[in-house]
Amino acid sequence: MSILKGIKKPTMLLNETIARSNIKTMQEKAQQNNVLLRPHFKTHQSAVVGEWFRQAGTTAITVSSLDMAAYFAQNGWMDIIVAFPVNILEIQEINELAARIDLGLLVESFEVVDYLQKNLKHAVKSWIKIDSGSHRTGLPWQDTATINRLASHIMRTSNLHLQGILTHAGETYHASSPDEIRRLFAQSALRMDQVRDSLKKDGITDIQISVGDTPGAMLSRSFSNVDEIRPGNYVFFDAMQLNLGSCKEKDIAMVVTCPLVANHPERNEAIIYGGAVHFSKDTFSQDGINKYGLVVSLHDRGWGRSIPAAYLKGVSQEHGIVSLPAEVINQYSIGDLIGIVPAHSCLTIDLLQDYRTLSGEVIHTLYSQYSKSGLT
Amino acid sequence: MSILKGIKKPTMLLNETIARSNIKTMQEKAQQNNVLLRPHFKTHQSAVVGEWFRQAGTTAITVSSLDMAAYFAQNGWMDIIVAFPVNILEIQEINELAARIDLGLLVESFEVVDYLQKNLKHAVKSWIKIDSGSHRTGLPWQDTATINRLASHIMRTSNLHLQGILTHAGETYHASSPDEIRRLFAQSALRMDQVRDSLKKDGITDIQISVGDTPGAMLSRSFSNVDEIRPGNYVFFDAMQLNLGSCKEKDIAMVVTCPLVANHPERNEAIIYGGAVHFSKDTFSQDGINKYGLVVSLHDRGWGRSIPAAYLKGVSQEHGIVSLPAEVINQYSIGDLIGIVPAHSCLTIDLLQDYRTLSGEVIHTLYSQYSKSGLT
Repeated sequence: MSILKGIKKPTMLLNETIARSNIKTMQEKAQQNNVLLRPHFKTHQSAVVGEWFRQAGTTAITVSSLDMAAYFAQNGWMDIIVAFPVNILEIQEINELAARIDLGLLVESFEVVDYLQKNLKHAVKSWIKIDSGSHRTGLPWQDTATINRLASHIMRTSNLHLQGILTHAGETYHASSPDEIRRLFAQSALRMDQVRDSLKKDGITDIQISVGDTPGAMLSRSFSNVDEIRPGNYVFFDAMQLNLGSCKEKDIAMVVTCPLVANHPERNEAIIYGGAVHFSKDTFSQDGINKYGLVVSLHDRGWGRSIPAAYLKGVSQEHGIVSLPAEVINQYSIGDLIGIVPAHSCLTIDLLQDYRTLSGEVIHTLYSQYSKSGLT
Repeated sequence: MSILKGIKKPTMLLNETIARSNIKTMQEKAQQNNVLLRPHFKTHQSAVVGEWFRQAGTTAITVSSLDMAAYFAQNGWMDIIVAFPVNILEIQEINELAARIDLGLLVESFEVVDYLQKNLKHAVKSWIKIDSGSHRTGLPWQDTATINRLASHIMRTSNLHLQGILTHAGETYHASSPDEIRRLFAQSALRMDQVRDSLKKDGITDIQISVGDTPGAMLSRSFSNVDEIRPGNYVFFDAMQLNLGSCKEKDIAMVVTCPLVANHPERNEAIIYGGAVHFSKDTFSQDGINKYGLVVSLHDRGWGRSIPAAYLKGVSQEHGIVSLPAEVINQYSIGDLIGIVPAHSCLTIDLLQDYRTLSGEVIHTLYSQYSKSGLT
């Protein structure tokens, strides 16, 4: 029976074999390079997929919210970093988690450290968030004076065990070649090492360095100076990662199947049921065009190759506009499914929530209580 | 007690008085212009907010999916157009709805009409979707030959009662002034009227014209040639509508409150808990800058004026970067809430799902089963 049977709405198909292979490849790379792999679970948001990591040897994870931390803690994960600046308004949730698991928190200000010192009821591990070049958040890596003062301040608190310094080299997402990604990732690691050296000069030792980002973790040949890596997207990849060169097409483990609802062969476009409420609105730039996704052929057992020159051109709330070459468009009829590799799998998963594997199993996630895909 | 008390996560605040006033204003405008107002409920997605429309006189509504139609049918709405090309894979859901309510469907191809003729078990109202200039989907308005043939074809079916022609002049969203919006909206209505004239010449009479889009419905001074309008966003508005000139700041009925988690006064930026999984990634362009939202001051009873030159500059999965002028940034501390008027309220509501009104009531929506805002 076809794996596509019964799909009526935008639905995620998941190739478990590829996902497990991606998990294993990164695990082996980390092992070979003698770094701890602490994968970011915000990509898949699923306890079931989490087990695939556990079976491959993962013991420590990263998440992006306290809700996600609570969900994975409930599913047996005991060593979790919340890779987001501490939201002091959620101190109750922090205390609940800190009582049960080995909780890692990101701090970057004296105010937050003082607040935690007063309000934490259990010990946590703290990481100083460093801005090593992405300019999102964190203390600027050059500002070693403040970093050292904050580190000393943390060491005087009773419940915040200073574990190390942490960065996310998000600038790799704007690189124009794999070589540039390697250069940016290495530059970020080097800057972190300089911060560690400066701490050491002040007598602050045993400082670990934790770095993130999938492009850098995939493309770097070594992780010198680094203790821990936190990539996440590599479990499934997406069109953005493919475009950056972080993966090959054969590594993509998730596509979204969308019903074709209208055909416009006169302008080489088809309209799918699949819009911003399914894919979000992230894009990547290829050949000077902003694309919301790529198009793959579908068959009874899953999906095949991408269709050259075909892409998801636009999304409104529920509509997607797919650009299909003239020689392809006539192969599609209304009611067919079209396979889309989303630009950004993390945001798509956050919206669609449930997966169907190629063996027909339904996999739930943190937010599965209501699934737009209607999987049960 | 402050309405902000207890808010820990990105949370929508809703000013019911303003929303009811927006509902009333549009209802009166429709009445004065002798057109049926069929508001689009995809914006608010809530049965409770739907009642506010009912109390103002709304009897017929628009939705963008069959799930949404089923939800509102369950809540007593008996006249619903699904303003999306028929997805034939959901024929069972269509038949279930058609058995219970006055269901309107959008058709634009012979295949779909033939499929419905064979598979519909109950009568529905059909609307021919016309592309009057937005180039999303529908039959091009100039192609009167095909439109007339399709209309004749529909009239030969037993269960598809031809109601009229329908368009969404989405091109108004790209206009650079209120005058251009009026011109585009009038042009779209005129084109629809030409289509109706051509149908009449072929002996097809009693054809209604249904038009959509909030900017056009707000700014047009009259609705000549039009039978029905389907705006939706006007219930709450958002930063995009404000920027287009569809509303004044005092008409905005919803803002998102977000915890401030990190401060970067050296670059006039603050980091909030509020990212792409809360706001989606829509933007509007103002002063040559792409913005994800505007910033308003918050107080115990709700929100006040927008803060000049402040805006939501960027979003990643959970982080938002807010640009705040130098004279303002020092008024904010970590743990404060920042009020954001999102670029696009429909997508934000689809993600955040539940509202808190200024009187403290929690309002649920179609997808409330799991709310990221943690409202109960």
